[in-house]
Amino acid sequence: MDIQKKIEELGLFLPACPKPLASYVPANRIDNLIYVSGQLPSIKGDLGSYVGSVPSSMSPEVAARAAGLCLLNSIAAAISVLQPGETLKLVQMQGFIQSDPDFHEQAAILNGASNLAVKIFERNGYHSRTAVGVSSLPKNAVVELSCIFQVIADESKFTGRNDWLL
Amino acid sequence: MDIQKKIEELGLFLPACPKPLASYVPANRIDNLIYVSGQLPSIKGDLGSYVGSVPSSMSPEVAARAAGLCLLNSIAAAISVLQPGETLKLVQMQGFIQSDPDFHEQAAILNGASNLAVKIFERNGYHSRTAVGVSSLPKNAVVELSCIFQVIADESKFTGRNDWLL
Amino acid sequence: MDIQKKIEELGLFLPACPKPLASYVPANRIDNLIYVSGQLPSIKGDLGSYVGSVPSSMSPEVAARAAGLCLLNSIAAAISVLQPGETLKLVQMQGFIQSDPDFHEQAAILNGASNLAVKIFERNGYHSRTAVGVSSLPKNAVVELSCIFQVIADESKFTGRNDWLL
Repeated sequence: MDIQKKIEELGLFLPACPKPLASYVPANRIDNLIYVSGQLPSIKGDLGSYVGSVPSSMSPEVAARAAGLCLLNSIAAAISVLQPGETLKLVQMQGFIQSDPDFHEQAAILNGASNLAVKIFERNGYHSRTAVGVSSLPKNAVVELSCIFQVIADESKFTGRNDWLL
Repeated sequence: MDIQKKIEELGLFLPACPKPLASYVPANRIDNLIYVSGQLPSIKGDLGSYVGSVPSSMSPEVAARAAGLCLLNSIAAAISVLQPGETLKLVQMQGFIQSDPDFHEQAAILNGASNLAVKIFERNGYHSRTAVGVSSLPKNAVVELSCIFQVIADESKFTGRNDWLL
Repeated sequence: MDIQKKIEELGLFLPACPKPLASYVPANRIDNLIYVSGQLPSIKGDLGSYVGSVPSSMSPEVAARAAGLCLLNSIAAAISVLQPGETLKLVQMQGFIQSDPDFHEQAAILNGASNLAVKIFERNGYHSRTAVGVSSLPKNAVVELSCIFQVIADESKFTGRNDWLL
């Protein structure tokens, strides 16, 4: 599967791999698992209007779009450690939503990322998920995702010919 | 080990696998690790009185029982991806407790899940654990668990006969 | 690499493995991954002045030192499950910072742990990382780390002789 092409078919775009700000890396691959650093809903490092808490600063619908953006940044980070012939399966998503104390619809916000994951990865997009509301996130971002991906063979690149075995 | 039987011997019951509410799954198995989605202290989807913050809405003792319920839901989710002859070992438990800002006994609440894990899984119940207090959880639940299990061979199903080797 | 020696060269010391307070373990090894329990900035169980929120109770600079202490405790826990000839690579660090609601520089605080990780483990210290601000942590600690390490062969113990092959 060509992840970038699929994202563009959905009318979205794959961002550049987010830059780390200290002695850490955007994505750390251990065997076939990729641990991605917490991603914010930034475009080229700019959070734009995705700052503040839900719902006092923005509606759950807008925050759900922000969650989708966190996922795209997570994918960009994960892709950066793939080798040719490999693609991604989403394993786990932990989502932290900067919430007003009496807001408890964190699940609806993460759906913005979960539903997008299945649109992009299809059957490889189903994941386990944990949604948590917190009082403050880095840079005042409304949402932050911490994702784990699995590296799998990109079957679309398999020609069906096993000549190399002969 | 028959997990369901062991839970019933403790006077508890194994719930049905909790239903996902969006494009995610209750449990995601990658090789021999099972990543379980964040589980709330619900019975058949109903949180009952396990809503609010500790200690303003309920005592730490009641919240500890809620943590045990989160564990039972996590086990139910993990069991759903087991194959015959396999059983579970608890690897990691991250627990988020909806806390009043000046409450700092999150560990005591998670003990309700940790101690139950060892009662159920015995030596396979010891796990690493992280307890965090947060300002708001989905559905106003008092506690949420994010667990990882390992799939291991169910030795109780091993007959002790190695005839198949002959 | 001798982790303890390296830590001492940096003018620090490796603490004793932190004791668990319930039915969990400081570090849980599953194959070549080590899941470490959430570690606080304690020395021999005492948090000293590392209690309260940032910045009302302490400056980000002091909290960054506390994050480094959490890392040392995490290393101590991880080392306890190593076998001879093995050493550690840091995989993932999730950091929870007890923050005032309007504080959003959690990244700067975690740098105290991230930068120390690279000083100690060099190229094996680069990790993925998620920083989250929360309203309350166990024992009123200012920061808590939840780390995953990978077990790798300690190349410094390899003699370069392959006599055993002959």
